[in-house]
Amino acid sequence: MSPARTDHDARRHDVSEAVWRVLAEHGFGGLTLRAVAEAMGASTGLVTHYFAGKRELVAHALDILETRTRERPRQKTPAPGLPALRAHVLDILPLTPDSTAMNRIWVGSWDLALSDPALFAAQTARYERIRETLRAAIGDARRLGELPAEADPVRLAQTVLSFTHGLVVQALFDPERFPPEHQIRLTDDFLAGLRHPENQ
Amino acid sequence: MSPARTDHDARRHDVSEAVWRVLAEHGFGGLTLRAVAEAMGASTGLVTHYFAGKRELVAHALDILETRTRERPRQKTPAPGLPALRAHVLDILPLTPDSTAMNRIWVGSWDLALSDPALFAAQTARYERIRETLRAAIGDARRLGELPAEADPVRLAQTVLSFTHGLVVQALFDPERFPPEHQIRLTDDFLAGLRHPENQ
Repeated sequence: MSPARTDHDARRHDVSEAVWRVLAEHGFGGLTLRAVAEAMGASTGLVTHYFAGKRELVAHALDILETRTRERPRQKTPAPGLPALRAHVLDILPLTPDSTAMNRIWVGSWDLALSDPALFAAQTARYERIRETLRAAIGDARRLGELPAEADPVRLAQTVLSFTHGLVVQALFDPERFPPEHQIRLTDDFLAGLRHPENQ
Repeated sequence: MSPARTDHDARRHDVSEAVWRVLAEHGFGGLTLRAVAEAMGASTGLVTHYFAGKRELVAHALDILETRTRERPRQKTPAPGLPALRAHVLDILPLTPDSTAMNRIWVGSWDLALSDPALFAAQTARYERIRETLRAAIGDARRLGELPAEADPVRLAQTVLSFTHGLVVQALFDPERFPPEHQIRLTDDFLAGLRHPENQ
C-alpha cells in the first residue's frame, strides 16, 4: 500500500471517528460539516473534501452505525433457548459506554428514518431480522421445555423486542435509575415471567 | 374580544396546525420556517412573524406536543388495578391516526432531547411521572389480588413502560405487522403474564 493510500485511510478513519463523536454528543440534529471539523480540530474545508453536504454526511453516519453495530462485541456464545434469548437482549441494551453511544445514535436516527422512505424500509427490515433471531431462540426454548408449548414465537419475539427497545429509551434518559446491573435485573425478571409456571 | 385579536388567534392556530403537520410528516429534522410556510400555503415572511428562527420554532413544536398529549382523548375511566394499568398502556400506544402522529413526533423529539440538557431533564421527569401513574395502578392491582404480593411496583412499572415504548417504536416502523388490534392483543398477553399464576 502506498503511503498516500495509508494517509488517506488514516484520515478517513479520523473523519469517521469525528462523525461518531458528534452523533453521540449532539445527535443527527447537530451533525453538520462544521461540527465534524471542530471535533477533528480541522477546517470545514477539509471535511467538505469527504462530504459534499449534509446528505452525504448523514449517509456516512448511517454506514458507520450499521458497521459498528454488526461488529460490536457480544455476549459469549450462550446455551440455546432462554440463555440465548437473554444474550440477544443484553447485546442490545446500553450496558457499556460504547453501547450507550451506539444506542443513543440509533434512537437519534429514528426521527430521520420515520420520514425517509428508504431509511424507513431499512429499519422495518432490520427489526424483523432482530425478531427472527429472537424467534429462533424462543423456538429452542419451547422445544427445551423452558417456555410453554402454547407460547407463540411470533408474538413473544415482538413482546421481547418491545421490552428491550423500551428499556433502551428509559435507560438513555435516566442512567442513574437504570445502571447496567439494574437493566440486567429487569431483563432477568422479565424473562423469568415468560417461563411456564410449572418450570418455575 | 376585538376582531384583530380573533384574527391573530385564528392565524396562530393555523401556524400551530402547520407545525404539527410538518412534524408528523418530516420530523424535527424537516422542521424549517420554509416547510411550515409551505404547509400553510403562506410566505416564509409570514412565518418569521411568529418565529425568529429554528430555535423558537422547535420550542413552539414542543409546547404543542406537551399540550396535545395532555389533552388527548383517553380510555373511559376503567376499574382500578389491572384494568387501569391496561388503560394507561392503551392511552400511549399508536392505536389511532392522531395517536400515531403524536407518537411519531415524540419519538422524533428524542434525538433533540438526548443532546439538550433542559429537554433531557424534562423527558427524564416526564417518564418518571408516567411510571408513577403505572406504579399506582400496580399497587392497586396488588391490593386487589390481581398481581402477586411479591411484585415490586417500582420495577414492574419500569417493565410495563419498557414494553409500551418499545411497542410504540415497532408499530411506528411496521404498521402492517402491528395494526391496533394486534397491539391490543400483545398488551393483553403481556399483562396476563404479569398475573399471579394462582389467579390465571
